[in-house]
Amino acid sequence: MKRVETLKKIAFEKKGFDGFLITNEANMLYFAGFPGATCLLFPRNGENTLYVYGVNYEQAKAEGKGFSIEFVKRDENLAAKVAAQIKDYGIKKLAFDSLTIENYRGLVKFLRGKAKLKPQAKLVWELRKVKDAEEIELMRKAGELTCEGMRAAYEYIRPGIREYEAAAEIEYAMRKKGSWGTAFETILASGVRSAYPHGGCTDREIREGDLVVVDIGASYRYYRSDMTRTLVAGKPSEKQKRLYEIVKTAQQKAVQAIKSKAKAKDIDTTARKVIEEAGYGDYFVHSLGHGVGLEVHEPPTLGQQSKDRLAVGNVVTIEPGIYLVGFGGIRIEDTVLVKECGSEKFTDGFYTLEAGK
Amino acid sequence: MKRVETLKKIAFEKKGFDGFLITNEANMLYFAGFPGATCLLFPRNGENTLYVYGVNYEQAKAEGKGFSIEFVKRDENLAAKVAAQIKDYGIKKLAFDSLTIENYRGLVKFLRGKAKLKPQAKLVWELRKVKDAEEIELMRKAGELTCEGMRAAYEYIRPGIREYEAAAEIEYAMRKKGSWGTAFETILASGVRSAYPHGGCTDREIREGDLVVVDIGASYRYYRSDMTRTLVAGKPSEKQKRLYEIVKTAQQKAVQAIKSKAKAKDIDTTARKVIEEAGYGDYFVHSLGHGVGLEVHEPPTLGQQSKDRLAVGNVVTIEPGIYLVGFGGIRIEDTVLVKECGSEKFTDGFYTLEAGK
Repeated sequence: MKRVETLKKIAFEKKGFDGFLITNEANMLYFAGFPGATCLLFPRNGENTLYVYGVNYEQAKAEGKGFSIEFVKRDENLAAKVAAQIKDYGIKKLAFDSLTIENYRGLVKFLRGKAKLKPQAKLVWELRKVKDAEEIELMRKAGELTCEGMRAAYEYIRPGIREYEAAAEIEYAMRKKGSWGTAFETILASGVRSAYPHGGCTDREIREGDLVVVDIGASYRYYRSDMTRTLVAGKPSEKQKRLYEIVKTAQQKAVQAIKSKAKAKDIDTTARKVIEEAGYGDYFVHSLGHGVGLEVHEPPTLGQQSKDRLAVGNVVTIEPGIYLVGFGGIRIEDTVLVKECGSEKFTDGFYTLEAGK
Repeated sequence: MKRVETLKKIAFEKKGFDGFLITNEANMLYFAGFPGATCLLFPRNGENTLYVYGVNYEQAKAEGKGFSIEFVKRDENLAAKVAAQIKDYGIKKLAFDSLTIENYRGLVKFLRGKAKLKPQAKLVWELRKVKDAEEIELMRKAGELTCEGMRAAYEYIRPGIREYEAAAEIEYAMRKKGSWGTAFETILASGVRSAYPHGGCTDREIREGDLVVVDIGASYRYYRSDMTRTLVAGKPSEKQKRLYEIVKTAQQKAVQAIKSKAKAKDIDTTARKVIEEAGYGDYFVHSLGHGVGLEVHEPPTLGQQSKDRLAVGNVVTIEPGIYLVGFGGIRIEDTVLVKECGSEKFTDGFYTLEAGK
């Protein structure tokens, strides 16, 4: 409940709210530690309440520690029920993380002007962006499991096997060692498809000389990891090697530039400059990285539009790439923890184009 | 583009709209066949437009067939850009599938009263609920792959192995045969955790006599499948066998009751009656089933609150269960296609409590 208290302190004492409604799934998991709630209500005066349907009621009672558990019947109107509670708790100024226009209107209707609603997703992100010791431990473990998957990639990828067959070996290696599942859909894009940053994983047969982008993540107790390596099935060409060294240098320099208080934009610039100076700036078509945690894409973003400054406890990806349509793509990515004077890599190793290494 | 034309026909000719904005990810995949768009705009007069950021631009050009592809720069305001296009196309009454309150307000601001917005997610669901021949073929394949996973479950689950180790074998079996990934996070809940319908998959060691609920799904070219079996590690007890027969009968009767035009509520009642008459009605804590397709939970719902009638081409799950806290849970689930005078099971077999069968 420490996380709930921290949010309430910021939202109520500093921002003047007297209630907070949480409906986003990852946010609910963050505050309740239990993955089956329908919504959470934190009042200034009253009990922190977890709303749950019958299907997850028994699990909520066992695992939703510190909450008053409110059973929602299938034929009940959830908006009406939550609005009644908001009025009971005397909430006048309610912050919320996320509502569709329909749910927002439903709540407004049943509140009949008794409380004002204001979106405040950013306040929750301020907390979630800075990982605590327990989260760091879980993410370190997720990173280790991801490296086991990458080991399998370098072992199994060769001409003649299909993309999904390689993915099977990678995911199996992570799962067998304790991964709770994949952090996102595995990208294993070979040949010309490797030039698409989100090229997916199909039944294409990998051919001699293909670039293969392997973008994978394990998860551990709901925390995720994110790692990309690019390798060649067979012997790399001179051009492949040359492009690879550019991306590798860009990635190394960016990782080295990470430290507390650095501007996220500047880390992006560090990598982008290397690629631009090599003449491939137009082919690095995405931002350098993003936060990771309970979700695979979280704030802060490391890009040219970013206004964030890094802080101790941020966990971010560093993933420069060069994508040449018709030729293929190269991306190298690690998940790293921001520390006071540098960083710690949660994923590491396998900085080579050559399979079998 | 046939799906786009069907939607436009219903929304424009029958409902009087002159534009449709699609922002939901699965809906975009349904209409564009490409999984990286930011939003889609279908005008009555003008080109169907696919908005995409740089990271997916090249893939959109190659795979977003039939659309005008609009590049969105990172520093561009998307709401302003889409609003400008809406005005250009002369759209006055815009339907949309889903918007958060912030995005809704952003769009309203830039439209300056030129167009009215109205949520119409249901219109898209009317299309997506009825699978066409191509979708049925992909879902049949996803079902076959899921059965390969269940085969592995019955082969590997035994006392002494951990939940995630069994999940590793199951997911590997599906992937190796061609699955594009898991349709949802595998549930492999053993012992007392099997009494939680969404009990997850942990590092718990499975013990002699444990009930093990295995709820899995393969996916194939973005289409999903959903199947549950319950088995016992070791020799089943008399009580386990008795409960199992109740759930099995309930599931069989419900599957037999499926046909075009049947009320979804009545199918739920068919299964619920079997469980109620056996004295366990209070322990069947969820609805009987749900639609499946590009997402694992779609309309129609088969439950007591459902107002749907089944139609040829619906694909739904039939999944009764009994959950006894402290004892364990039993659920049996198949994904089935609704036909004129019955149904076709996309998942099948393994109707036994005994592992190794």
